[in-house]
Amino acid sequence: MAIKSEFDLIQTYLAPLTRGLPGTFGLADDAAVICAPIGHDLVVTTDAAAEGVHFFSNDSARDIAWKALAINVSDLIAKGATPLSYQMALSFPEAPSDMWMADFAAGLDAAQTAFGITLSGGDTDKRPGPLTITITAFGHLPSGRMVRRSTASAGDWLYVTGTLGDSALGLQLRLHPDLVPVFGLEDEQTKHLLQRYLKPLPPVNIHPFVLDYASAAMDISDGLAQDLGKLAAASGIGAQIETARIPLSRAAAFALAKRPHLISVILAGGDDYEVLAAIAPANAAAFEAAATKSGVAVTQVGELIPKSGVQFISGSGELISLDVSGWDHFRHAK
Amino acid sequence: MAIKSEFDLIQTYLAPLTRGLPGTFGLADDAAVICAPIGHDLVVTTDAAAEGVHFFSNDSARDIAWKALAINVSDLIAKGATPLSYQMALSFPEAPSDMWMADFAAGLDAAQTAFGITLSGGDTDKRPGPLTITITAFGHLPSGRMVRRSTASAGDWLYVTGTLGDSALGLQLRLHPDLVPVFGLEDEQTKHLLQRYLKPLPPVNIHPFVLDYASAAMDISDGLAQDLGKLAAASGIGAQIETARIPLSRAAAFALAKRPHLISVILAGGDDYEVLAAIAPANAAAFEAAATKSGVAVTQVGELIPKSGVQFISGSGELISLDVSGWDHFRHAK
Repeated sequence: MAIKSEFDLIQTYLAPLTRGLPGTFGLADDAAVICAPIGHDLVVTTDAAAEGVHFFSNDSARDIAWKALAINVSDLIAKGATPLSYQMALSFPEAPSDMWMADFAAGLDAAQTAFGITLSGGDTDKRPGPLTITITAFGHLPSGRMVRRSTASAGDWLYVTGTLGDSALGLQLRLHPDLVPVFGLEDEQTKHLLQRYLKPLPPVNIHPFVLDYASAAMDISDGLAQDLGKLAAASGIGAQIETARIPLSRAAAFALAKRPHLISVILAGGDDYEVLAAIAPANAAAFEAAATKSGVAVTQVGELIPKSGVQFISGSGELISLDVSGWDHFRHAK
Repeated sequence: MAIKSEFDLIQTYLAPLTRGLPGTFGLADDAAVICAPIGHDLVVTTDAAAEGVHFFSNDSARDIAWKALAINVSDLIAKGATPLSYQMALSFPEAPSDMWMADFAAGLDAAQTAFGITLSGGDTDKRPGPLTITITAFGHLPSGRMVRRSTASAGDWLYVTGTLGDSALGLQLRLHPDLVPVFGLEDEQTKHLLQRYLKPLPPVNIHPFVLDYASAAMDISDGLAQDLGKLAAASGIGAQIETARIPLSRAAAFALAKRPHLISVILAGGDDYEVLAAIAPANAAAFEAAATKSGVAVTQVGELIPKSGVQFISGSGELISLDVSGWDHFRHAK
């Protein structure tokens, strides 16, 4: 049964998600009050997730909610910020059912707990078109300390968190289930890759170490190739990656061994929501130790170099040229 | 011709709108830094504007941009906040043309100047469905001073800014041009009402006086009837309005004289983007003087009373019952 009203949607399902944040007034006012601790800046980022673009229409409400929040938290932590709160605009093509809203709220609740972030307000409306969740997320960090893209130096080492390519391979399998035997994957491996696309897990514990040790950082959302290209270009330098060092899950490594061309999907496919960080060699040991202690795997995959452009070097020392260079909403549009 | 890429859209058209706000890094990073002055809170609000719901597909890009920003600024000033910056998520069904984007950016630029607010960041994507502009806007005010809905007292006087009903009447004329002769309007009057729907003008100068004098306030976006109902209910009291006191433009007064039933459209039609403020009688003279001096017309339309519910009393002392009680995205959905 469809929810009764906008008021019901907000008060029944969303207001409970503001608990512990007094400036939200239980979503019963027109605006919220948010404060960074004294001596801290607010870091703010916006990302929308739309049905048919960022998730599938048959994904569960719980997974959709998780993903919409995770892709925003990913930006905060990559800037060194501690997650704080978020505004959420929901656009529905038709009034959702009570069951759907309950699942959606449960997904947000789980993500809030995992990421340490709380709903502070938003907007809901009904209009034709895909279900869209637009989130603006806030984090805080000591004033003037936001970790930029543009501040890397040649000679810095390049680290990534977690494993890359799982989500992009999972999306391939989701779109083309006939690839499962082609990749030669076991059930467990297929499930792992599909799940990584469905439910990104940005490494939330990394943010204090990005803040303390990174000379530049950003999240990897449009593929390592494109995002590293942005970081290097913004810093006025280039980068060299040894692809043999790219951290892979067992499933991704297995698929890649069967189909070497999948290296393009892994490097340029997107949706990783891991962190890319430039670390001065003098800070590398401390960064690695702190990250590992906090439970986040970090791997050095290459370094920044004076010459502009991003080079991917294979295990046998050859330059790899990629088929695609990552996601652009309007270039893909043609 | 369609814009070349997401990068081009951002750097050519949107980045110039961040001028003067150093924490935005010219939209060349993944997040922005925003700060309220020391001793101040950030006030945050979110409103989306979608083609076919909040504006027409043949509205100009310049007017669409203005409206999307104005409806957010309206919430800030009604809370007593000074506008600061905004995040904007743009969803396009297809890549816009360079000409459209230039017009859209010009509309934002004009609204930024009018409202004293600056772009701090956002997101753009392409997906089926209507063009949607989702804005999260920030303002600041002295810590702990946000003017709430729920803090009005019985005996407070009710003030509104500007004139009410113009936008709702303008929308009626837009939807049903055959109403122009029915309302008996002159060309100039028709134009005025259409323009008020197209380009809301929230009374930005009122915010310091809301902050200093209002015991409660909110913007009027869903119609006076519904919004006053919310303010009164949140404060645990009721309200009485003398409809003869409602400030009307010449055009609205003219139409109402011809068609008395239009009082329902004026009271419940929505899209006014004026401010509703509860003012203790002891503050009324100072509020009126300060508002008038700043160029904002304010009118006392009634008062808050102990008995719950909102009553509209006609000039002849009769209780008016309204056909509709204002906009709800999901109740209208059925």
